[in-house]
Amino acid sequence: MTFEQWTRLVLERVETALERYLPAETTEPAKLHEAMRYAVLGGGKRVRPLLCHAAGELTGARAECLDAAAAALEMIHVYSLVHDDMPCMDDDALRRGKPTVHVKYDEATALLVGDALQSQAFVVLTSDVLGAPQQASLVRELALASGSIGMCGGQAIDLASVGHTLTRPQLETMHRMKTGALLRAAVRMGALAGETPDEPALASLDAYAAAVGLAFQVVDDILDVTTDSATLGKTAGKDAKDGKPTYVSIIGLDASRALAAQLRSDAHAALAPFGARAQRLAELADLVVNRVS
Amino acid sequence: MTFEQWTRLVLERVETALERYLPAETTEPAKLHEAMRYAVLGGGKRVRPLLCHAAGELTGARAECLDAAAAALEMIHVYSLVHDDMPCMDDDALRRGKPTVHVKYDEATALLVGDALQSQAFVVLTSDVLGAPQQASLVRELALASGSIGMCGGQAIDLASVGHTLTRPQLETMHRMKTGALLRAAVRMGALAGETPDEPALASLDAYAAAVGLAFQVVDDILDVTTDSATLGKTAGKDAKDGKPTYVSIIGLDASRALAAQLRSDAHAALAPFGARAQRLAELADLVVNRVS
Repeated sequence: MTFEQWTRLVLERVETALERYLPAETTEPAKLHEAMRYAVLGGGKRVRPLLCHAAGELTGARAECLDAAAAALEMIHVYSLVHDDMPCMDDDALRRGKPTVHVKYDEATALLVGDALQSQAFVVLTSDVLGAPQQASLVRELALASGSIGMCGGQAIDLASVGHTLTRPQLETMHRMKTGALLRAAVRMGALAGETPDEPALASLDAYAAAVGLAFQVVDDILDVTTDSATLGKTAGKDAKDGKPTYVSIIGLDASRALAAQLRSDAHAALAPFGARAQRLAELADLVVNRVS
Repeated sequence: MTFEQWTRLVLERVETALERYLPAETTEPAKLHEAMRYAVLGGGKRVRPLLCHAAGELTGARAECLDAAAAALEMIHVYSLVHDDMPCMDDDALRRGKPTVHVKYDEATALLVGDALQSQAFVVLTSDVLGAPQQASLVRELALASGSIGMCGGQAIDLASVGHTLTRPQLETMHRMKTGALLRAAVRMGALAGETPDEPALASLDAYAAAVGLAFQVVDDILDVTTDSATLGKTAGKDAKDGKPTYVSIIGLDASRALAAQLRSDAHAALAPFGARAQRLAELADLVVNRVS
């Protein structure tokens, strides 16, 4: 199977899983459920679900288990986008090529959509397709990655950094928490959904995820200044306008491109112990670095 | 032990547990952690933790397990208060006798405090004081009670009801979701933290929780029109001002008082199968109905 075929197959599975794991639009309160589905379905690159599925292939995880983990990861990711786009945060009107939730509906609905998607992620992880020990370990991974020492904490540092000069280590800390933690959780949760990997294997996966996570952010910063809003599906040039520190603003465009290439090599190197079994993870590192939106 | 002594003992345990299960103020990002602790510590009636501990005594749950469940419940409750008080929701400046989080800090911080408290609740429930099967079942109870078919869903219905006339059954549905679901989860999680109760026992506890949950809301509505802000620790008279339907506005003050008394009797009746072992739960039903703030 080519990478493109594999990707298409996984994306179809993930879309079906999200569709199934979200409450129906006809379930009361209908407007809230409609808005949750508007935010989640039919858009996004689904990077976390892809990483989750690829890592699960390493440990022989069943596809249904990976679907649940992937759906939960994407719900957390989307909740963070919905909240980040709100007027009191980044105040953005465009996301995944569509009006943001607070623009399409209203702010109160956007707040509740995010809150309810977070809860729903943990409902999904405790569905009986997974055994109790896996439910417990996946919940812990996702909750730690989402919270104040992970994604939410990174967002808090991001907000505090507006208009300030960050050092490169500070910028890295911020990104490791804001986007890196959840990408790392995607890889770990995929692996943990199968036969429990040993510590060296988990350490290799962590090293891979750290490189891919940082590469993802460096490429985001590059695309923010080199690509238009229509291609991105979100407002381009926004970081510079908002006075947010980025890799491009700190080390420049050329050095950022070189860093992304280096991080791709690091990601590949981390996968060496797995040999050919890690092919999909290697290809996903390439995808993250070579993407144009 | 008198009820007052028992209550004081449990409240001390819960405060210690919350203190321990919240990241330290010195952990980065410090401002976020400070705000999370500001929101959670040193205030509130801790009704959900009390219900959780009382139910756990029925099934022989260890106090450390109940501390974890109680802390998680309170974190979810406080996150919902922080978000509900934000300008795009109820826009309230006073909570538990202190400025609300968005007033004391800012809106973005309030948003993140709520988000991170929700994650932290699931971190706490997967701490190793609980076994994996209990972690999984408690996470599922709490996630379902918090999400779009529970607390968040009730809040969505509440928002949509402003300025509209609700029938009494509609008002009941709203409250069953908005506050009832989490109060029910408090009772069930306490019980599930011990020896797994059989179905008839869980059904009796559900009936008890349904009566207490509704009584809680009826009394809230009564206090909103009969008590001043200083006693309540939040803005009194706000529901009427906001055009929100309440028990008092739909059935009047006297009928609301009679309903609260009836629900207390229902709660006591539901506990009959447990005999004297359910003394604390019975006393908590009295506390909920007789409270003055």
